[in-house]
Amino acid sequence: MDTTQPSGILAPALTAFTDRLDIDTERTIVHLQWLLGHGCDALVVFGTTSEANSLSVAERTSFLEQAVAAGIDSKKLMPGTGCCSLPDSIALTKHAVGLGCPGVLMLPPFYYKATSDEGLFRYFANVIERVGDERLRIYLYHIPPISQVPISLTLIEKLTTEFRGIVVGIKDSSGDWEHTRQVIDRFAPAGFRVFPGSELHLLSALRAGAKGCISAFANINPALLQKVFQNWQGPEAEALQQETERQGRTLRKYPVIPALKAILAESRKDPGWENIRPPFVPLSSAQREALFADLSSVVFQR
Amino acid sequence: MDTTQPSGILAPALTAFTDRLDIDTERTIVHLQWLLGHGCDALVVFGTTSEANSLSVAERTSFLEQAVAAGIDSKKLMPGTGCCSLPDSIALTKHAVGLGCPGVLMLPPFYYKATSDEGLFRYFANVIERVGDERLRIYLYHIPPISQVPISLTLIEKLTTEFRGIVVGIKDSSGDWEHTRQVIDRFAPAGFRVFPGSELHLLSALRAGAKGCISAFANINPALLQKVFQNWQGPEAEALQQETERQGRTLRKYPVIPALKAILAESRKDPGWENIRPPFVPLSSAQREALFADLSSVVFQR
Repeated sequence: MDTTQPSGILAPALTAFTDRLDIDTERTIVHLQWLLGHGCDALVVFGTTSEANSLSVAERTSFLEQAVAAGIDSKKLMPGTGCCSLPDSIALTKHAVGLGCPGVLMLPPFYYKATSDEGLFRYFANVIERVGDERLRIYLYHIPPISQVPISLTLIEKLTTEFRGIVVGIKDSSGDWEHTRQVIDRFAPAGFRVFPGSELHLLSALRAGAKGCISAFANINPALLQKVFQNWQGPEAEALQQETERQGRTLRKYPVIPALKAILAESRKDPGWENIRPPFVPLSSAQREALFADLSSVVFQR
Repeated sequence: MDTTQPSGILAPALTAFTDRLDIDTERTIVHLQWLLGHGCDALVVFGTTSEANSLSVAERTSFLEQAVAAGIDSKKLMPGTGCCSLPDSIALTKHAVGLGCPGVLMLPPFYYKATSDEGLFRYFANVIERVGDERLRIYLYHIPPISQVPISLTLIEKLTTEFRGIVVGIKDSSGDWEHTRQVIDRFAPAGFRVFPGSELHLLSALRAGAKGCISAFANINPALLQKVFQNWQGPEAEALQQETERQGRTLRKYPVIPALKAILAESRKDPGWENIRPPFVPLSSAQREALFADLSSVVFQR
């Protein structure tokens, strides 16, 4: 077992912005610290929920350096580094590995659609070759509802065969439990580390052999997910998972990223948390009211 | 009539790469010169066909500077500058305007899907405000088959109302002639400059009030498209359009970007033209053979 690799509950950490929509480094770092202190085992910085693709390469490398300088343990970070452009993915991946991050989460190049497994394989192979660092560990990022570029089972097979010990896991945000189960059944026995991209199937995934989950929901209630993770073999498991699903489904009634930011703004008494880069917009006041009414039956973590 | 704005036949110019997959600046500039000398009125550098989204911001700004330094008239360039990230789009747009390019072609941010018109509006508004240059002219880039983020008629209405004289046109690569016709009918009378993103409806588009077209096909036979453009009111128009469609449909039987590169490699006796960044792969030898057999009935320009 590779104990240097993250497992358990990971949040794709929200990114705070100033009123001018620059990264609010300090506020974001405070959030990272809060997450690590309240139930997260590790953090995906620059995931989908982090608005990573709304950030430039320079913003991403600079923020990561500042977070590590502020005392965030790089061993607990799995930065998202997959971009449309090969040089961007190489630069971000090299930078993350250089800072001591144990793994990176890589989107496939997502502009062109209906690309071939062979083309995607060459993309990852190119990044691996050009990063050229034996410490590199890649988690594939399968999120077809957003990227529209799936990572097929055939591609996983090819990458894990060709780059054994480098391509070590996947975040499966297909939202399709049958697909996640297939990935676990087929690849987990050989040590492939599977993280569903949602808390809705956390218990089933752990029972099947997943290593944890990477869930946007962890930004607001990591302790609950951590309880599921700690107790998945215990008598309380089903009840904890049910409560998780109830809260997760409440959140999903709203645009998730703006809703998460509205919840942080409310719970931290800090309206600046609602700042969000376009193409997103903050919740409308009607949405915000409805969200908080819904939440009255849900205890979010403060 | 604004005579500084491009019209006629524009090619989204192919980008050449070295064997190591760096931009081959010299070979690409030679191609730009060839296009301008053989029927193109202007060029989109960094369009979809240029593999723009496989390039970094630094590669794009550096190439553009080198092209202009090599004598390519910046007044004939409409660079693609729309990225997922706001700072990238601002940087590229500012740079292009600074170099004297009369217009830029802007994709909407294309990672997140099902975003709102309001979010997309804020995106473009932010770019316009931060570029802050009265010379800025934006052409919207509607290419839902690839970006999966359409630019709705409502959004065009809002942008052209709010930013009259700045948001001046569109490349419509919907591939849906009825949609293109709607855009022309609704917005062209007020001076909005519509360019279909394909040669297949060039004649119909010109008759309806389009300003020309921006077509990948122009990389290999710009003279034929120029003939349609010159003669669209003449007796030969239908025959020229038919020949254009015959050649265009032949090309579309293959993956278009690799096929265009294979044709340039063949016609210029320069195999290096087939280099392509993943997620694309060069044509297989079977595809290449079939393509050249198909082309025996098609006269491409040398």
